[in-house]
Amino acid sequence: MAPLTCMGFKACGLAAGIKKNGSLDLGLLVSDRPARVAAVFTKNRVQAAPVRLDRERVKSGMVRAVVVNAGNANCANGRQGMLAARAMTAAAARLLGVADDQVLAASTGVIGAPFPIEKVTAAMPSLVEKLDQGGIPDLARAIMTTDTRSKTGVREGQAAGVFYRIVALAKGAGMIRPDMATMLCFICTDADLAGTDLQMALNRSVDGSFNRITIDGDTSTNDTVILMANGASGARIDSKNEKEAFQRLLDDLCMDLSRQMVKDGEGVTKVVDLKVRGARCDADARAIADTIAHSPLVKTAFFGEDANWGRIIAAAGRAGVFLDPDRLDLHFDDVQMVKTGTGCGPEAEEKATGVLKKPEFSVTLDLNLGTGTAGMLTCDFSLDYVKINADYRS
Amino acid sequence: MAPLTCMGFKACGLAAGIKKNGSLDLGLLVSDRPARVAAVFTKNRVQAAPVRLDRERVKSGMVRAVVVNAGNANCANGRQGMLAARAMTAAAARLLGVADDQVLAASTGVIGAPFPIEKVTAAMPSLVEKLDQGGIPDLARAIMTTDTRSKTGVREGQAAGVFYRIVALAKGAGMIRPDMATMLCFICTDADLAGTDLQMALNRSVDGSFNRITIDGDTSTNDTVILMANGASGARIDSKNEKEAFQRLLDDLCMDLSRQMVKDGEGVTKVVDLKVRGARCDADARAIADTIAHSPLVKTAFFGEDANWGRIIAAAGRAGVFLDPDRLDLHFDDVQMVKTGTGCGPEAEEKATGVLKKPEFSVTLDLNLGTGTAGMLTCDFSLDYVKINADYRS
Repeated sequence: MAPLTCMGFKACGLAAGIKKNGSLDLGLLVSDRPARVAAVFTKNRVQAAPVRLDRERVKSGMVRAVVVNAGNANCANGRQGMLAARAMTAAAARLLGVADDQVLAASTGVIGAPFPIEKVTAAMPSLVEKLDQGGIPDLARAIMTTDTRSKTGVREGQAAGVFYRIVALAKGAGMIRPDMATMLCFICTDADLAGTDLQMALNRSVDGSFNRITIDGDTSTNDTVILMANGASGARIDSKNEKEAFQRLLDDLCMDLSRQMVKDGEGVTKVVDLKVRGARCDADARAIADTIAHSPLVKTAFFGEDANWGRIIAAAGRAGVFLDPDRLDLHFDDVQMVKTGTGCGPEAEEKATGVLKKPEFSVTLDLNLGTGTAGMLTCDFSLDYVKINADYRS
Repeated sequence: MAPLTCMGFKACGLAAGIKKNGSLDLGLLVSDRPARVAAVFTKNRVQAAPVRLDRERVKSGMVRAVVVNAGNANCANGRQGMLAARAMTAAAARLLGVADDQVLAASTGVIGAPFPIEKVTAAMPSLVEKLDQGGIPDLARAIMTTDTRSKTGVREGQAAGVFYRIVALAKGAGMIRPDMATMLCFICTDADLAGTDLQMALNRSVDGSFNRITIDGDTSTNDTVILMANGASGARIDSKNEKEAFQRLLDDLCMDLSRQMVKDGEGVTKVVDLKVRGARCDADARAIADTIAHSPLVKTAFFGEDANWGRIIAAAGRAGVFLDPDRLDLHFDDVQMVKTGTGCGPEAEEKATGVLKKPEFSVTLDLNLGTGTAGMLTCDFSLDYVKINADYRS
């Protein structure tokens, strides 16, 4: 894999004392020149102060930096929360010598705890001091909450013979649900793209990746994906072919990070590639995939390595869209468990139980009604998920 | 409490060997004369064979008996499943000396396992032999699956000086979700009501009780509520006042059984009376209550006795309806935790943690926007829920 660096970008992370356990919790990502920006935010009606601030600031289309903390979501803190988000970016802006509104903010952690802005401003000089081309791994660690591993990726492309790179880092292990921009993800590229191309590319990639994964069905108040393009490589993306190539790289990178997130989902022991096909339309397939992917009974059966296909078709049946129970086919990997609505018997069941013992497998439900399809990356529901979330704040 | 008997009804339960553990698994409820019938069935598109059979048979408006088994849902068994459901009722009908289509069937248990019809028919003579006025408690035990306690209730009323009784029994501890007829419930009354009055009363009571509870958000393929009225007491319900009195008794009885179900929900340690008010309309309030009640993060926090109100307002925010985060008030019982969108501080938090240590408490979210309200009875998500459902079939 190419190194996690991107021309014209510096990053860093340090421990500012926001997390109780003393690990990295404050980070900074800076472009040495103004960068075009595209962003996708949570659709939750309750939005953290930094999300509300960023929504305004990305409208200019250009930014220089993102300052981010873990350990406190700065959400539901009223007027004090918004003042803190502004103060956090102002402290960084002053030291970087840029305008306040060129700095974005992001926070992740507990909702509703007063934001320790004094810790953030006190740590800011050391943070700026630490900025380094090789600082992206530290930044990735500084945004972790219940994540057990940091999540990063890099892709390389070229446009008219000039190489460019896209580097991404993300966090997210709970409060993950499709159809809402998910978790925190920061992507930087040294390619040069028009602002509208950048936003369009990001929307497409997010829709095909972060919007197709689920861990627990909850949606954060802080979800943010920011893509910055500073053009430092000199690679200009403007032809149709170049745009398509960039899109493929970005799609692949976002899917890579999505998979990393599900694998590291809270308490996850199984990663399940769920496919629904043969629906009357894609929207029907999506509704069914969504219902199966979030069913506690299906997810606990995955955890128990139990090929309990009855729960899968029962979940499909309550998705609110038409299906004919007598036409359903179901496979675990390539083992057919259900044919035209009826179980395939003990031998198939035994083989399927073998499939479920693997850490990753696919489940394919065919409605045999039409050409609608949908895919979703989901996971099991384990004892550890409950333990992690029952004890999160203690 | 009045005894669990109802004039003109007999019931019983026995062990037919369908459940692996040898406990009661086959039951019968019989009226000694034709009874008017009302019924509500699952809205799942995948429906068990007995549900499909009963839907046809209740159209006549009169039935004599219900035969029910636990340990096998007789669902997704194709043509064999429907033949088995018919055979089950035919065996009972022959011994009872009534027409086949006067007998309803209900099944609960594993989906997709071949139905052991030979065990049912072999046990039928003994079953009919055991029919007894005092047999309702045995019938209630015979329909249990993961239930740890049988669920029954009785109410008494009078019409024009004549006493009547309503007796109900139910099962259900998982695959419970509102807005779909829920679980199995059989209700018998010796009052005399017109068929349309009976169905209307049942619809209202189900909507206010079984459709307002949730355990895990999954909906069964077998959910069935059957209400039989045989008029054996001679109490005739036809005036407006009498109908209203009957409705109140039926509402109260259904709510009683609903609460018994949530309390006995799989792995439940906390019963939570969730109230949403101040929404723009009742439908908005319902959408928010539904989202909070099913949030795994909220439910695991209840299990952890953690007053993590941030997760509750985050769930409210993703319900897809309008709310103003800065107007939200939240109470745990009478302890205010959130005022106009902001936490009430450590003292309130400490008091709220005290509330969460209780086995039953209320959570009230006020949107302060309008007069829309909704209530839901929900529960926590515990380690035992995962254990029970990971191991269900093994």
